Amino acid sequence: MFSQPDLLSMALTHRSFSAAHNERLEFLGDSVLNCSASILLYHDFPDMDEGKLSRIRSHLVKQDCLASIGRRINLESVLILGTGELKSASRIKDSIVADAVEALIGAVLLDAGFEKARDCVFKLLRPVLAETPIESLGKDPKTRLQELLQSRKKGLPVYAVLVEGGTSASPEFKVECVISDFDIRKSGVGHSRRVAEQQAAQAVLEVLLDQAYADPNQSTRRL
Amino acid sequence: MFSQPDLLSMALTHRSFSAAHNERLEFLGDSVLNCSASILLYHDFPDMDEGKLSRIRSHLVKQDCLASIGRRINLESVLILGTGELKSASRIKDSIVADAVEALIGAVLLDAGFEKARDCVFKLLRPVLAETPIESLGKDPKTRLQELLQSRKKGLPVYAVLVEGGTSASPEFKVECVISDFDIRKSGVGHSRRVAEQQAAQAVLEVLLDQAYADPNQSTRRL
Repeated sequence: MFSQPDLLSMALTHRSFSAAHNERLEFLGDSVLNCSASILLYHDFPDMDEGKLSRIRSHLVKQDCLASIGRRINLESVLILGTGELKSASRIKDSIVADAVEALIGAVLLDAGFEKARDCVFKLLRPVLAETPIESLGKDPKTRLQELLQSRKKGLPVYAVLVEGGTSASPEFKVECVISDFDIRKSGVGHSRRVAEQQAAQAVLEVLLDQAYADPNQSTRRL
Repeated sequence: MFSQPDLLSMALTHRSFSAAHNERLEFLGDSVLNCSASILLYHDFPDMDEGKLSRIRSHLVKQDCLASIGRRINLESVLILGTGELKSASRIKDSIVADAVEALIGAVLLDAGFEKARDCVFKLLRPVLAETPIESLGKDPKTRLQELLQSRKKGLPVYAVLVEGGTSASPEFKVECVISDFDIRKSGVGHSRRVAEQQAAQAVLEVLLDQAYADPNQSTRRL
């Protein structure tokens, strides 16, 4: 399939194995991936604003999505790793698999041109996009936090303004978001109370989602 | 030049003027810009590692570079802004000009395809790349910090390990970098002392460069 097989083997080679490793291809592939994802989303969601498009793109190209794509196409079995990386873990790290997916896209670009690389990204991302909870990714952090807490039958967040400062031309707010059921409190800052609240809600969401990732029995991955 | 002139006028329209504004095109163009910059750098610097390539790319696509590109091609004179934005400042903001450059690239992609958009980015970025201090962008933060301090005839940074923890398989270091002449101290963390030192140096560099931007008499922009 590759007219330049050296590119393919370089894309699969981790730096632990050889100096001819895949990191430059990964640099290239990362940006081709991002660009192709943007084109896909721009056309698939003709009425969506750029904020929501960006949130969905971030979700599609993040490490754990790419690693699961790599495992789905069985990339692990063909990766070329040094003995250190092979011995150090029972399974190959997400970061190595995700980087190899990007490097592979970079290799397709060099071997066959942008259109081919883009179509390859479309093919890899479409199944992920189909499983992506577009609605909740498009929602603002306060709404997502409220829905997450309701789904777990927990009390609603309480927002309190801690600091209201700055000047009238450039006000500054610091707001705290408290979730008593989880004993979590996080603050956010911004030029308006609304922005500071959203930031605080986002910080709380990150804590809750990290906990959910750490505990695989909590299925909040899709929130 | 545009076969779809509506795309061109949309690319030039700020959200303050109309609902048919350029933000979705900017979403698209931003990623085409990044991808084209990556392709340019990958080919122009065949021996450069991906860390240096990334630093140069970040420099090329940052707001002030894009705004100066936009002003160079006289984009300001054709931007379509609401009266609020027109009245509020003596000159159009950098962010508005930079966003319009990205939107324009997005419009070229839709109108003429990726290769045309990429060539357009190459043409815009080559003069900026020619003026970019590749060598100092390619250097690591500790080296850049040392050179900056020497150029200002100031004392060298002092690094101190604050915390040495973690496990032997996964050590954790926290290192502080102190610049006594400026009364600045910043810390960095990492799995090795070297990484933590580089992080701390980077944090100090950001403070110093922010101060230099705030005081235009200090010419450290090119460091």
